Amino acid sequence: MLLCITEEQGNMILVTNDDGIIAPGIKALVEVARQFDEVLVVAPDSPQSGQGHAITINHPIKLRKVNVFEGIDAYECTGTPVDCVKLAKNVLLKGRQIDLCVSGINHGSNASINIIYSGTMSAAMEASLEGIDSIGFSLLDYSFEADFSGAKAYASKIIRAVLDKKLPHCKLLNVNIPSVPADEIQGIRVCRQGEGTWVEEFQEGTDPRGEKYYWLTGKFVSHDQTEDNDIAALKNNYVSVVPSGHDLTRYPAIPELKYLENL
Amino acid sequence: MLLCITEEQGNMILVTNDDGIIAPGIKALVEVARQFDEVLVVAPDSPQSGQGHAITINHPIKLRKVNVFEGIDAYECTGTPVDCVKLAKNVLLKGRQIDLCVSGINHGSNASINIIYSGTMSAAMEASLEGIDSIGFSLLDYSFEADFSGAKAYASKIIRAVLDKKLPHCKLLNVNIPSVPADEIQGIRVCRQGEGTWVEEFQEGTDPRGEKYYWLTGKFVSHDQTEDNDIAALKNNYVSVVPSGHDLTRYPAIPELKYLENL
Repeated sequence: MLLCITEEQGNMILVTNDDGIIAPGIKALVEVARQFDEVLVVAPDSPQSGQGHAITINHPIKLRKVNVFEGIDAYECTGTPVDCVKLAKNVLLKGRQIDLCVSGINHGSNASINIIYSGTMSAAMEASLEGIDSIGFSLLDYSFEADFSGAKAYASKIIRAVLDKKLPHCKLLNVNIPSVPADEIQGIRVCRQGEGTWVEEFQEGTDPRGEKYYWLTGKFVSHDQTEDNDIAALKNNYVSVVPSGHDLTRYPAIPELKYLENL
Repeated sequence: MLLCITEEQGNMILVTNDDGIIAPGIKALVEVARQFDEVLVVAPDSPQSGQGHAITINHPIKLRKVNVFEGIDAYECTGTPVDCVKLAKNVLLKGRQIDLCVSGINHGSNASINIIYSGTMSAAMEASLEGIDSIGFSLLDYSFEADFSGAKAYASKIIRAVLDKKLPHCKLLNVNIPSVPADEIQGIRVCRQGEGTWVEEFQEGTDPRGEKYYWLTGKFVSHDQTEDNDIAALKNNYVSVVPSGHDLTRYPAIPELKYLENL
């Protein structure tokens, strides 16, 4: 009887990412998530960084069961990170509650405006739009050889807290972890999204057929002079947690723009 | 001398979309924008609905000058809507000020949470991230045979007002236009983003090679019982204008989540 209750009350944790199902970051996140309960992995079959909230509507997508994480049900998907969450919810777990969606651990920062471009965060946001508690994790290290030990330790603490206390009002957390050894991480800062911009340029070249091409390159620059934001927290070796959401309304601008109603 | 001053003070309006450069909606928007001053069009060479804020980082993209709009410089791009804005700013108009970016007129609604998935709105948001006043326009009609007369009339009024008064604080407007004859539009409502969700399912099928596929389909359902939101405005045949932005922080949740700092 106890076993039965435990099973019914067990948590279903959906794990996804945007770096693809064989990235070290998702392996690290699965190792953390599986400590808590049942895990399902649905992740892209190829790297999808910078996919933002893209969804596939003009052509079909495919799912393939893969044996990547021992003892864990895992599927690779030909679509985007957001497609992975939609497929998990509507096909693989149809009718079953998802208690938590975790996305990542991303290889590279999703602090500041990077949340907008991030497939990792968009996958988590997609789950949050469905009322599912969701967390995106990112480590500030692009390398596939990155040390995930600090990230895993903090992901474990945060997942445990969220499973325990839930996210009653804000369904989405953007968690970024500094790229330093675990014992140099100073703790957690709950803060706002910092202001910054990408100073970009396009590398121009000529392809083998003689056609000109452009390839995006750039550097992130912080504009934020305050201390209560994610960029500042990370700079000081704190893990940043930004409660995030999908309502893009700028409320203070509504009265300022009411004059448009008289056009 | 007067001519010279006029030229120096002339506005540069960047026009883009996500339905592709030959969609009727962008033609309607170019016809409106060219009334005001110089126009540059950079738009995808194929439909890119649902691309969200996707950018192309893993491969190069191409630009091709096309003669689609008589007397207007226009380029088609192999990338996403956001790529189009980045290329316009960093390559085609490098060093020149863009006074306004208009995106659309989208074929279909971008009200409520559709702003998150929309390539049209993401292109406009990309420009707003660069401090450029930006407006995304959408008509609630998916058809390529849609009647754009009402949409053009209101786009013209709103563009004139924004060029005149600028958008000093909020750099991004999400404008949706009901799909009714121009004389049935009741006016403009400046409001917030409504709450809603997509009730989705995947059409399952088998491809010619015997592999199972999934194709996204769904229906938008409003959850919002209030009247001050874009869905309600559109239902009452008003044009909705939602001042929007890129800061996804849920500020009221910061104190609620401070307990995470003690983990």
